[in-house]
Amino acid sequence: MISSADLSCDYLEGAHPKIIERLAATNLDQDPGYGEDAHCERARGLIRAACDQSGADVHFFVGGTQANAAVIGCAVPAWQCVLAARTGHICDHEAGAIEAGGHKVVALPGVDGKITASQVRDAARAWADDPHRAHILQPGMVYLSQPTEYGTLYGSAELEGIAEACRAHGMLLFVDGARLAYGLAAESNDVSLADVARLADVFTIGGTKCGALFGEAVVVREAGAIPRFFTQIKQRGALLAKGRLLGLQFEVLFEDGLYGRIGERAVREAQRLRGMLAGAGYPPFVDSPTNQVFVAADESLLLALDGRVGFGVWERLEDSRTVIRLATSWATPPGAVDAVGEVLAGL
Amino acid sequence: MISSADLSCDYLEGAHPKIIERLAATNLDQDPGYGEDAHCERARGLIRAACDQSGADVHFFVGGTQANAAVIGCAVPAWQCVLAARTGHICDHEAGAIEAGGHKVVALPGVDGKITASQVRDAARAWADDPHRAHILQPGMVYLSQPTEYGTLYGSAELEGIAEACRAHGMLLFVDGARLAYGLAAESNDVSLADVARLADVFTIGGTKCGALFGEAVVVREAGAIPRFFTQIKQRGALLAKGRLLGLQFEVLFEDGLYGRIGERAVREAQRLRGMLAGAGYPPFVDSPTNQVFVAADESLLLALDGRVGFGVWERLEDSRTVIRLATSWATPPGAVDAVGEVLAGL
Amino acid sequence: MISSADLSCDYLEGAHPKIIERLAATNLDQDPGYGEDAHCERARGLIRAACDQSGADVHFFVGGTQANAAVIGCAVPAWQCVLAARTGHICDHEAGAIEAGGHKVVALPGVDGKITASQVRDAARAWADDPHRAHILQPGMVYLSQPTEYGTLYGSAELEGIAEACRAHGMLLFVDGARLAYGLAAESNDVSLADVARLADVFTIGGTKCGALFGEAVVVREAGAIPRFFTQIKQRGALLAKGRLLGLQFEVLFEDGLYGRIGERAVREAQRLRGMLAGAGYPPFVDSPTNQVFVAADESLLLALDGRVGFGVWERLEDSRTVIRLATSWATPPGAVDAVGEVLAGL
Amino acid sequence: MISSADLSCDYLEGAHPKIIERLAATNLDQDPGYGEDAHCERARGLIRAACDQSGADVHFFVGGTQANAAVIGCAVPAWQCVLAARTGHICDHEAGAIEAGGHKVVALPGVDGKITASQVRDAARAWADDPHRAHILQPGMVYLSQPTEYGTLYGSAELEGIAEACRAHGMLLFVDGARLAYGLAAESNDVSLADVARLADVFTIGGTKCGALFGEAVVVREAGAIPRFFTQIKQRGALLAKGRLLGLQFEVLFEDGLYGRIGERAVREAQRLRGMLAGAGYPPFVDSPTNQVFVAADESLLLALDGRVGFGVWERLEDSRTVIRLATSWATPPGAVDAVGEVLAGL
Repeated sequence: MISSADLSCDYLEGAHPKIIERLAATNLDQDPGYGEDAHCERARGLIRAACDQSGADVHFFVGGTQANAAVIGCAVPAWQCVLAARTGHICDHEAGAIEAGGHKVVALPGVDGKITASQVRDAARAWADDPHRAHILQPGMVYLSQPTEYGTLYGSAELEGIAEACRAHGMLLFVDGARLAYGLAAESNDVSLADVARLADVFTIGGTKCGALFGEAVVVREAGAIPRFFTQIKQRGALLAKGRLLGLQFEVLFEDGLYGRIGERAVREAQRLRGMLAGAGYPPFVDSPTNQVFVAADESLLLALDGRVGFGVWERLEDSRTVIRLATSWATPPGAVDAVGEVLAGL
Repeated sequence: MISSADLSCDYLEGAHPKIIERLAATNLDQDPGYGEDAHCERARGLIRAACDQSGADVHFFVGGTQANAAVIGCAVPAWQCVLAARTGHICDHEAGAIEAGGHKVVALPGVDGKITASQVRDAARAWADDPHRAHILQPGMVYLSQPTEYGTLYGSAELEGIAEACRAHGMLLFVDGARLAYGLAAESNDVSLADVARLADVFTIGGTKCGALFGEAVVVREAGAIPRFFTQIKQRGALLAKGRLLGLQFEVLFEDGLYGRIGERAVREAQRLRGMLAGAGYPPFVDSPTNQVFVAADESLLLALDGRVGFGVWERLEDSRTVIRLATSWATPPGAVDAVGEVLAGL
Repeated sequence: MISSADLSCDYLEGAHPKIIERLAATNLDQDPGYGEDAHCERARGLIRAACDQSGADVHFFVGGTQANAAVIGCAVPAWQCVLAARTGHICDHEAGAIEAGGHKVVALPGVDGKITASQVRDAARAWADDPHRAHILQPGMVYLSQPTEYGTLYGSAELEGIAEACRAHGMLLFVDGARLAYGLAAESNDVSLADVARLADVFTIGGTKCGALFGEAVVVREAGAIPRFFTQIKQRGALLAKGRLLGLQFEVLFEDGLYGRIGERAVREAQRLRGMLAGAGYPPFVDSPTNQVFVAADESLLLALDGRVGFGVWERLEDSRTVIRLATSWATPPGAVDAVGEVLAGL
Repeated sequence: MISSADLSCDYLEGAHPKIIERLAATNLDQDPGYGEDAHCERARGLIRAACDQSGADVHFFVGGTQANAAVIGCAVPAWQCVLAARTGHICDHEAGAIEAGGHKVVALPGVDGKITASQVRDAARAWADDPHRAHILQPGMVYLSQPTEYGTLYGSAELEGIAEACRAHGMLLFVDGARLAYGLAAESNDVSLADVARLADVFTIGGTKCGALFGEAVVVREAGAIPRFFTQIKQRGALLAKGRLLGLQFEVLFEDGLYGRIGERAVREAQRLRGMLAGAGYPPFVDSPTNQVFVAADESLLLALDGRVGFGVWERLEDSRTVIRLATSWATPPGAVDAVGEVLAGL
């Protein structure tokens, strides 16, 4: 249900107007398919430059579940498993896509959606020390989201630590950047795009939630690390025929640094929202500095919001309150957060 | 390489201008995700009406390989295989997507890309008569393309015959309509959209090659015949977050019958092309009435086309000629076919 | 490493002598393959009778991981997941076999290897209440082991409760009886074979650890509930060519109630062992009434056992002790437990 | 149906008496599981020696479909397919096991069950020359059976040629030796076990049909070529708990050259049978020098055999005759072939 103000998620709108303009302007151009066109080529170059990784492979996917499943399915051998925070997107919210591709995801307890280097090391050592280890899947990859599913961010030291633990134990680090633009725009953030690119073996740069109609760029730091990825993407039904549509969108997002700025207003609006809610007696349930705001709502808040502001339901607490999420996006209309203010004023 | 006239395939261009207009006009609307928006709802209704199947399920996919793999993967049980013409798209051109999903495709020899009802019956009976049949996959589905990969069309009687053979042997009929608009627009065609919908258990209505930026509608005649298809689509990474983009495109294609007309010019241009080639001593290699033209090209034709007209290479004949394909689309620029004429004139 | 007394696991030895005799006596008989012989037929009848389920399907597998993977892979649809205790065999000790077959196993925290009906109900309700449930795997099966991997037993009331929770929420109950004979032989056991057969939708009767050379009988209570299971077993490479070898072994185990008695001595010896260890200051780590004995061993016990008694290493405790397992079997030599007594006396 | 003389297949009987003796003699020994026992170790050594490949990996499987699926699944990457004769066992007779594991098998037309080096080269070149090859599976392995499913043998030159074609195009050669003993025992055979081991990257030595109760040894010429094969075997449910049962059988078969001799009588009896049939007007349908005899039977022969001699039904010819198979084994009772003689005499 769409309310008069909708903050239920961050992919309610279409794309940044420059993308629509570019689409219209190039519509009747004739381009080769499957990402072998000039837009894709240029977008790959722009992304490599923005990541400061001139040797990286860049592949474009339409969606995040698809990208996650392809990366894990193609980069992790059959005898290895993936470590992730229990709240990680691949754990519960992708309808078993990773397992359908044959891989086990080991869910680690997280704090505010984050796991730690020491959890990674412990898991690696537990396997290495187990006398039955040949009968057990070896941890082969760490999956984490930046920002996390709870809107929190790994700090630079945290991410360095996890990357080091991965290297020490021969594991890959995969960073899901579905909302990366909102992380880059957060005031407290100290992890740059180039940091992510340097520390992660593979990561995604989210377009769908960050200004594009759709699209996730998968960056593989070491070219060729995922062999014949093109053919494997095709096999997974994840190769877009008119690949230029993806190239064109990432061109717009990266040609003048738009991706680095596009999350700013959303983060600012989310902060304003957090302040309003806290002022009304609803402090943040999770201390998230990005575009997602979580609060534990009582019955009166739920009733007041209902029909006026769209929100997402996250979990029921034992004290009968409900954790809800309000998400802003690069395109959230100016009045949306004010609408929450009005609701709160009327409580 | 893109030549001055490019006839190398039928998905070189973007979308019908009305689709781009609609995209722009609705860009900042806020819509729920995953196909649960009003555009998708309306598009599903329009498609059901155009198919004369009010009870059908309609699902939208971004691409054809994805749609084929999802339909086969979800509709065919583990103990069954799929019959297809050796030239069928799922046989060789989807990088093993069907087998990657666990199913065997049995390639039947075809004529001009088509198989027959008697081949279907023979395969079904061979299984039923085999004393070892419990050790052998049962033919469970017939896959065919309309138009075929060689641009030919099943006639009404042929399709009825295959559908009847399927029913008689408990098999599903799946029609891949990636280029369906070009079939509907062919002069000799006697199979309507409603005929396909009545005869096939599942079929696709191709958007990518027929006027959309991307998108294939999967029509399941009997609602619920593929259980929990939504969740399974999600699991396959094939659920578009901003599903409205698919709904909106099929709305435009179906709201005033555009889909039925959009292939007309392409077919006409292809016919003109066929005539030119035949006149120059290159008769059709396959007698295809739709938008694809196949000829056996000798060295002089190949050389003459090279760099001036983009074409696709299909197969090498034993006499050293090369079968090439020239494809028109709804958006082929007016001069493209004339460019071939100029090349032929210069031979 | 094999010590002078080996209690490292319960499948160190071959088979009950009557099985070897029968093998020898029938060796040059000519029998049809794939389980279609008279031995298999008779064994299926004996098992149905022992289970008091005249309409059940009985299939024979060579091994447990194979049987578990086949049952789950064939009985659970793609959109469902399996609930199991975190210590369940399918969770960590089958090298990801269930996930390799495409299914997610959700690990529930257990107590002494057991889960409860209320955990099952909670998981089912959490899914049903989740507004995003179409994006999430539905709990479709409960997997539990009787006895558990920690040697404990579900009581009759516990099992009834779980079965009821499964029925209430449309879930299957799958009982892994790899060590079932040791459960049936336990003094405190109040769950008969017929109880398991009545409550579980599918269960296994373990042969490998319970007197056979190899073999697990899979009992599907409602015949045909797993469609074309024979073909699917073949497809999984799990169909034994000379199926009679399985039939013959289960014939011996069930023709005069041997299976009900074969665990008795092992359980008695394990109890004696438990007493010895407790008397020496090593109380049971888990209160298991069957053939597996777990104790938290300090350095001195580990050193004393080393090279004299084979044992299994289970987990390291934070206080630096190590949980070890000593397992008896139907064939444990009389002196093995005495050997532990000697070790303890020398501490 | 089992007739008074049964020649319906070559796995009707148990095992060579020496295997049964050894099983009985070692029955209550205590051995570690999963192939880590002394019998397996010794058997691996014996096999390496017999193959003249001291650096090979040897793994034991219970059955052939399992072994084929594991080898192909673990040795062929996702972007490659397997070439095999249309009559190859993996094509139709393993219930889609290879495809269920994700790989496409490309069926090549064979002559008497055999394919040629030039077919292999053509397939490799067709892929390499295809401008769309990134969208197409690359031929990555050749699968062939020695003897073939029609009882024929590759000669030394043929096998060398195929191996050379594989090397030239970066493909693996996998030889299925389910009936290898009957090939080794054939008079016209010029391919030794060491030849197979030198030419194939991976091959199986069949036990099930060649004197064992069950068991196939998989020999990987270059140790480690299939990484973590042990864990992957476990994951596929193909790791036998009491692995010593496999080791022990291959010990017996290889400790004094038994495997090289065990097929002799079966081949001699098959030749006698071929002579009888030809004399009665039923010449061989396929000129097979091993233990399988194929004839095109008319109605009168079928009727005469029915109920007196067990045979297998292979295919119906257009002239209404039926190709049947009569197979001898190392254990075929002396009178079985005579029984066919009596039937023929009575025609």
